[in-house]
Amino acid sequence: MPEAKHQDSTVRTEPTVLTDEELRTLDAHWRAANYLAVGQIYLMANPLLHEPLRPEHIKPRLLGHWGTSPGLNLVHTHLNRVIKERGLDALCVWGPGHGGPAVLANSWLEGSYSETYPDVSRDAQGMERLFRQFSFPGGVPSHVAPETPGSIHEGGELGYSLAHAYGAALDNPDLLVACVIGDGEAETGPLAASWHSNKFLDPVHDGAVLPILHLNGYKIANPTVLARLPEPELDDLLRGYGHEPIHVTGDDPLQVHRDMAAALDHALDRIALMQRTAREEGRTERARWPVIVLRTPKGWTGPAVVDGEPVEGTWRSHQVPLAGVREIPDHLRQLEAWLRSYRPDELFDTHGSPTSEVLACVPGGARRLGATPHANGGLLVRELPLPPLERFAVPVDKPGATLHEPTRVLGDLLEMVMEDSSDRRDFRLVGPDETASNRLGAVFAATDKVWQARIEPTDEHLARHGRVMEILSEHLCQGWLEGYLLTGRHGLFSCYEAFVHIVDSMVNQHIKWLRTSRQLSWRAPIPSLNYLLTSHVWRQDHNGFSHQDPGFVDHVLNKSPEVVRVYLPPDANTLLSVADHALRSRDYVNVIVAGKQPCFDWLSMDQAKAHCARGAGIWEWAGTNHEREPEVVLACAGDVPTQEVLAAAGLLRRHLPELAVRVVNVVDIARLMPREEHPHGMSDFEYDGLFTRDKPVIFAYHGYPWLIHRLAYRRTGHPNLHVRGYKEMGTTTTPFDMIVRNDLDRYRLVMDVIDRVPGLAVRAAAVRQRMADARTRHHSWIREHGTDLPEVADWTWTG
Amino acid sequence: MPEAKHQDSTVRTEPTVLTDEELRTLDAHWRAANYLAVGQIYLMANPLLHEPLRPEHIKPRLLGHWGTSPGLNLVHTHLNRVIKERGLDALCVWGPGHGGPAVLANSWLEGSYSETYPDVSRDAQGMERLFRQFSFPGGVPSHVAPETPGSIHEGGELGYSLAHAYGAALDNPDLLVACVIGDGEAETGPLAASWHSNKFLDPVHDGAVLPILHLNGYKIANPTVLARLPEPELDDLLRGYGHEPIHVTGDDPLQVHRDMAAALDHALDRIALMQRTAREEGRTERARWPVIVLRTPKGWTGPAVVDGEPVEGTWRSHQVPLAGVREIPDHLRQLEAWLRSYRPDELFDTHGSPTSEVLACVPGGARRLGATPHANGGLLVRELPLPPLERFAVPVDKPGATLHEPTRVLGDLLEMVMEDSSDRRDFRLVGPDETASNRLGAVFAATDKVWQARIEPTDEHLARHGRVMEILSEHLCQGWLEGYLLTGRHGLFSCYEAFVHIVDSMVNQHIKWLRTSRQLSWRAPIPSLNYLLTSHVWRQDHNGFSHQDPGFVDHVLNKSPEVVRVYLPPDANTLLSVADHALRSRDYVNVIVAGKQPCFDWLSMDQAKAHCARGAGIWEWAGTNHEREPEVVLACAGDVPTQEVLAAAGLLRRHLPELAVRVVNVVDIARLMPREEHPHGMSDFEYDGLFTRDKPVIFAYHGYPWLIHRLAYRRTGHPNLHVRGYKEMGTTTTPFDMIVRNDLDRYRLVMDVIDRVPGLAVRAAAVRQRMADARTRHHSWIREHGTDLPEVADWTWTG
Repeated sequence: MPEAKHQDSTVRTEPTVLTDEELRTLDAHWRAANYLAVGQIYLMANPLLHEPLRPEHIKPRLLGHWGTSPGLNLVHTHLNRVIKERGLDALCVWGPGHGGPAVLANSWLEGSYSETYPDVSRDAQGMERLFRQFSFPGGVPSHVAPETPGSIHEGGELGYSLAHAYGAALDNPDLLVACVIGDGEAETGPLAASWHSNKFLDPVHDGAVLPILHLNGYKIANPTVLARLPEPELDDLLRGYGHEPIHVTGDDPLQVHRDMAAALDHALDRIALMQRTAREEGRTERARWPVIVLRTPKGWTGPAVVDGEPVEGTWRSHQVPLAGVREIPDHLRQLEAWLRSYRPDELFDTHGSPTSEVLACVPGGARRLGATPHANGGLLVRELPLPPLERFAVPVDKPGATLHEPTRVLGDLLEMVMEDSSDRRDFRLVGPDETASNRLGAVFAATDKVWQARIEPTDEHLARHGRVMEILSEHLCQGWLEGYLLTGRHGLFSCYEAFVHIVDSMVNQHIKWLRTSRQLSWRAPIPSLNYLLTSHVWRQDHNGFSHQDPGFVDHVLNKSPEVVRVYLPPDANTLLSVADHALRSRDYVNVIVAGKQPCFDWLSMDQAKAHCARGAGIWEWAGTNHEREPEVVLACAGDVPTQEVLAAAGLLRRHLPELAVRVVNVVDIARLMPREEHPHGMSDFEYDGLFTRDKPVIFAYHGYPWLIHRLAYRRTGHPNLHVRGYKEMGTTTTPFDMIVRNDLDRYRLVMDVIDRVPGLAVRAAAVRQRMADARTRHHSWIREHGTDLPEVADWTWTG
Repeated sequence: MPEAKHQDSTVRTEPTVLTDEELRTLDAHWRAANYLAVGQIYLMANPLLHEPLRPEHIKPRLLGHWGTSPGLNLVHTHLNRVIKERGLDALCVWGPGHGGPAVLANSWLEGSYSETYPDVSRDAQGMERLFRQFSFPGGVPSHVAPETPGSIHEGGELGYSLAHAYGAALDNPDLLVACVIGDGEAETGPLAASWHSNKFLDPVHDGAVLPILHLNGYKIANPTVLARLPEPELDDLLRGYGHEPIHVTGDDPLQVHRDMAAALDHALDRIALMQRTAREEGRTERARWPVIVLRTPKGWTGPAVVDGEPVEGTWRSHQVPLAGVREIPDHLRQLEAWLRSYRPDELFDTHGSPTSEVLACVPGGARRLGATPHANGGLLVRELPLPPLERFAVPVDKPGATLHEPTRVLGDLLEMVMEDSSDRRDFRLVGPDETASNRLGAVFAATDKVWQARIEPTDEHLARHGRVMEILSEHLCQGWLEGYLLTGRHGLFSCYEAFVHIVDSMVNQHIKWLRTSRQLSWRAPIPSLNYLLTSHVWRQDHNGFSHQDPGFVDHVLNKSPEVVRVYLPPDANTLLSVADHALRSRDYVNVIVAGKQPCFDWLSMDQAKAHCARGAGIWEWAGTNHEREPEVVLACAGDVPTQEVLAAAGLLRRHLPELAVRVVNVVDIARLMPREEHPHGMSDFEYDGLFTRDKPVIFAYHGYPWLIHRLAYRRTGHPNLHVRGYKEMGTTTTPFDMIVRNDLDRYRLVMDVIDRVPGLAVRAAAVRQRMADARTRHHSWIREHGTDLPEVADWTWTG
């Protein structure tokens, strides 16, 4: 099999017919991979069966998933063939990634494993290590994981393979992304939605995604829905998804090899033709991309019957088909026969290295699936061209004199990033139908929303080649962006704050991925996953209670602190500064919470940069009597809480001018944590310097108030910390009424100060009553007018 | 239109032809509903346009969603017709539920609104209230919500309508559940997966679901994917989903009425035929259920052009088509013309009540969609037959002498519940392919897993009529169960702990629903949503890091305390007690975290009941010197932490017998909260009685340790509270190694005691060293053997 020129194969008119030699070498590779997969699950010694199998060769704990492995091995073997023959740049996403033994086996065979982990050499000693380390304490996970060469997709939680594959293919025109989808995974919502990703794939600028739907028929304990559909119904479904199905069905290995080779060639020819007509002939109509439907038995080539029960071809082969190998002699005999059925003597030489026949189909160098740099995207990443922020900064001569919509200001910056990356095409903006609604619409001056379906004259900013991606699926937004970042490109996900919980579980997995990747020296850092959470809890005027949830911050802060960053910029310039930092960063998940509604400008660009660099700081201009020790600290995090704290500070200045009030604003919420628990955590010295050790701190926080306690509970001053925030008192109402309902309003904050500063309760009783009266006035006004009190609606900071 | 006998209509062979009178009355109803929808968005006075429209009649804040409303009104009008004509029991799930004005309009027209809310009478005064209250402070939400009569589905977060519809139809053989699916929602993952629910619908025991896919073409700012597919491709998709599409397309109201009537009759005839063949002729093959594809313009009958831009039929009609009505005279004129285009004088009499023509299609009594008891499931609910727990309890003569798998013991109880509810069919167990793996397999003695696709001889426990539902989609499990509970039945969701985060956002919405429902006197309490989270963080031997996340507890505890309950039973009998309590309860979300691995039995059934009733208590038998004030409290919550705390207590008893150690076990985690913050919260008096005010408390918790601080930060003794738990130090390893990696192990706990009890550090230095040595021994043993230290693996409590 000579190496062919890249993407240059002509479209065949006749189906592929493998030569006997090709068939033999492909089958040898497949058998070798199967042997190695079984070996990983069972053996800790005697890897080449140079002696009869004894119980002490068997691992004490048998862990792993055999069922999907032979299918994955088949796909890997045949991908090898076409990559080598066609000289493809290819990446494979292994949806049934709990079949870790299969992917590890293939990486070891092709040599990429030993290059990545030199102590696991491609010989008998290395094979023993490969076997022993699998699912072994201190070894490697049983799933495809960051530790697996060539992987961008953790095979634990199911549902995201196809979205990851599309993300990888975007703006990689020369890349083929194969994606094996298990029929279990295909039942999940995210996967079911992912099929429609082809309406967003630009055949000119993007690479191709080739889904391989592997119907082995069973999950852990049940058949799968898709495997039990009549074939015409399944074909209808796949055509409805915009695909042309190509079927490979069987359990006779040689025939399946022949069919799989023909199917892959057919699919790749079709892809090449589609790309050519789009790229060279300018065809803009969407065509049906191929999908391969591979139907082979679960646990294929494994034990057919164990203890009288059918195993091969049933759900019983899902994990470890022979469970009692150490104890039951018959199981041990069965295992040995199973392993020997692959004829290891033909596959490995005397040193335990794979023979040249086994390796005949394997491509070279970076074309190997375990060695592609696209799966180690940090190797390919380029600095994003970020313009100077001064260009977009809003002028601030004095605090609170002007209003801007922060996300609109950010939109101007993003437009420039889009513009400056238009040739490189390595920056994407994703969101569920909300780019304009979230006031980032300026980007449409630089690019469009990509759309491969019908475009009508009334449509705006829809085009075939855009780099903004909108679909009403947070799962797809997240999955596409993850795939894009993992292959070394940049992006931002703008999302309604409440509905980002839809991807809680996906961000869990991405954080776990980054946490592990950071510990692997061979994985180069990739661009961070950046969230802009807007349309936030305090401004759901059109929607109400169902759209109010600020808990994503709590969710991510449970995860690895080396990965997670949370920012709550209080105005437009601080948002610019934080976004700039996030877009430059690597290997983080940055959560930025910022409103889209008009918001007072508090800080100039210089001040904003300095403030964001510190992450938290005293706003002297907002407090009173700052030459003295403060009697109370008013702290805030988030745009709406900052406004209320400043309004409260103004009320205190007016009504209790002798009180020493300090205002502290927190942008980087992890600053509140102890230094030992988060890299951004403050020392106690710093914390006490900001918040004092013994003065009351009234903290107005954007989200659930107890989060602040969870972060700050170790601080000396914690017993004096009193937090206000969102406590699920939501409904459809005005912005200020939302604040009042949750006791976060300026009047309540002033009352909190009076209640908590020693000695003030009596002295300031009249002021307190005045505040209570204002709240009463609010309640009656709003019932009558349906709008906020004029004194609130027209409020500005007067310093 | 006379009321026909229920479900008795014969199947027509000819398409429905409406008489002129039917057409006129249907159109009148539709126009009236459209008028009322517009009125709600805009008007606060002059509801019947008895005088020319002036700015002061217009609400100060214009909020709501017009775009979807005319389509919803059309569907409601036509459902009225068939319900009345066929005498159907029907429920409708309104997927595009942000079209709240439409559903409210219809409820008001049919009278169910005024019956539920007598102050909103069916006359001019009531109409004005209906208009004014909409999206008004103190009024009603803009979405379909718990406040909406006839609703079981909050229309805020999109994706769950079809799963809810299926849940409602299960075990309701005489119910028709119509489900309007917006083409925006159809892009979400959960909705895309929900189509396959028909493989789980039993035509004998379940009712019918009639999906109505409403393609109005646009989301907030974009066209929708499904609306832009060529029709044959869409038909392929729907057939692939197992449906037979029936199309209704148009923008001429009268023709659409004709087509919609014919389509509904055709669909209902087909459903009746399918049910008859299944029920009377015993047909067991799955047939294609009908789906109606309704393609009408977004914002149909609204302003065609506003300020020179096309609005009707585009995304611009999504919310408020005329935004400047109060300020721009031309917008005001356009609004008046729009309202008058429905000819309100013909629709409402001089009192403002709908005319008999408008009401001609409306069915009576409980057949009205706003009055069906199925949408107020608490009216229909029956006590679940729960057997005495003693029958399933494991015998415990002394603590820690025996081991059981708690979930397996629970499985026996669930089998009995399944058995005892087999005639009533009002209990379901859902889970993503894990009932057996989670060791609840005993239920299969009483029922099967429902499955309407092909069944093969090797399949086990699959049958057409089962009440266990397994699909590899947490979204569907959750959505089905929610629909089932909301219509007054009972159930349990057993789920891998880590992957329940997949439904974080769904549980948010369900908790919000319950919180609001509890405040509505007309909504009767429904059975609680019960989670059994098992295969938990500490025992992911087959999977590793990706399967480790105990944060769902943190997630739900952010939500309304009147709804949320979290239990961590430490053994089999406490699990029985907690599950019994959860299954009897109403209007809660109960989260039960319990392992499936062998676990020591600590408490007898009587002790378990008493302990669970208290929610937290001292285990005197586990401590030492309990006649004295304790010097240290060892607290635990969760099965694995309890085991480690008892092991630590044993070590302390042996090595430091003079130390007074108290062991406290917490089952009901909200007990730790202040009484003012959670109904289960303890008083400070109780808390101090358990945990002391000033002694060190070493708390071993199942999940993220800071949760305990967040719950207990107000307690006097909080500065002495030291919590151990999962801190994301995960990998593929042995059970005990997981515990060691996270510093939750017995040796570490003893070291914590020594470090924290004043004066002990010096006195117990040798013991501390012995503990540190044990950890070192663990590390080297595990690297060599891959198993846990024998002293740990073979450990038992010796008292």
